[in-house]
Amino acid sequence: MQLSNDDRRFLDLAIEQARIGWDEGGIPIGAALVHRGEVLAVGRNQRVQMGSVIRHGETDCLENAGRLPASVYRESVLYTTLSPCYMCAGTATLYEIPRIVIGENRSFQESEAWLRSNGKELVIADDATCIALMDRMMTERPELWAEDIGVEASDLEHRA
Amino acid sequence: MQLSNDDRRFLDLAIEQARIGWDEGGIPIGAALVHRGEVLAVGRNQRVQMGSVIRHGETDCLENAGRLPASVYRESVLYTTLSPCYMCAGTATLYEIPRIVIGENRSFQESEAWLRSNGKELVIADDATCIALMDRMMTERPELWAEDIGVEASDLEHRA
Repeated sequence: MQLSNDDRRFLDLAIEQARIGWDEGGIPIGAALVHRGEVLAVGRNQRVQMGSVIRHGETDCLENAGRLPASVYRESVLYTTLSPCYMCAGTATLYEIPRIVIGENRSFQESEAWLRSNGKELVIADDATCIALMDRMMTERPELWAEDIGVEASDLEHRA
Repeated sequence: MQLSNDDRRFLDLAIEQARIGWDEGGIPIGAALVHRGEVLAVGRNQRVQMGSVIRHGETDCLENAGRLPASVYRESVLYTTLSPCYMCAGTATLYEIPRIVIGENRSFQESEAWLRSNGKELVIADDATCIALMDRMMTERPELWAEDIGVEASDLEHRA
């Protein structure tokens, strides 16, 4: 989908986070949280960097944003380079974030039907840079990717 | 439900975490992750103590357990003093934790139907200590509880 100028700009912040993460030796997935046009926080997957099992791009971003009133989440947009896993989808549901702009969903797509059934607005950018970042990781570090989505590396073939 | 001796013992570890959290000025919800009878980690809600918006009892516990193979999660049991929110339910779904023992679900119940539809085994203890801990918090710190489940304090009445 062709993004608006604002959506493009904020998704690019998430992509920048994904690139930083990859350069750090981590999983190249990034996110940004935006409230009425103001960037509240950015974040990136921290599995390698912090040894974290709960800091995906989206959750790291929310953690970096800190404690916020419910009313702020409800008027915010979450930008993420990759379609959310169930943990991140559940987090967006908990905080009632109404809109999620997704860089790409070719590499991974688990929660979108569920999110839509919860009333979320999802925008899929099908962004070539996001796809390329994931392709490179899946080729060079498949075991890391498998770990991040809770499967064994040997399971990846069955999911492809 | 009457718990087995093992389930009782492990749930008590989660309850101990909830008590510690309350004594720290935090939200009294705790968890334990157990793999084939071995306690991998315990954890507790860290909203107040760490200013965290993603460390609920269950997610803090998983974070404390560190990076684990997918096969370990799939043979583990998650003990939690309170019925999981969607973030924590989504995390258990991501890592395919098959069984969740829940201290109580009178104070909060959002994700159980969804978890069951995902094939999870849920055991509801209906534990008086867990209920009393939540009752006390909801009476003394309703604004904190509202924040933790992504609602405004004024919304709580509508949910009761």
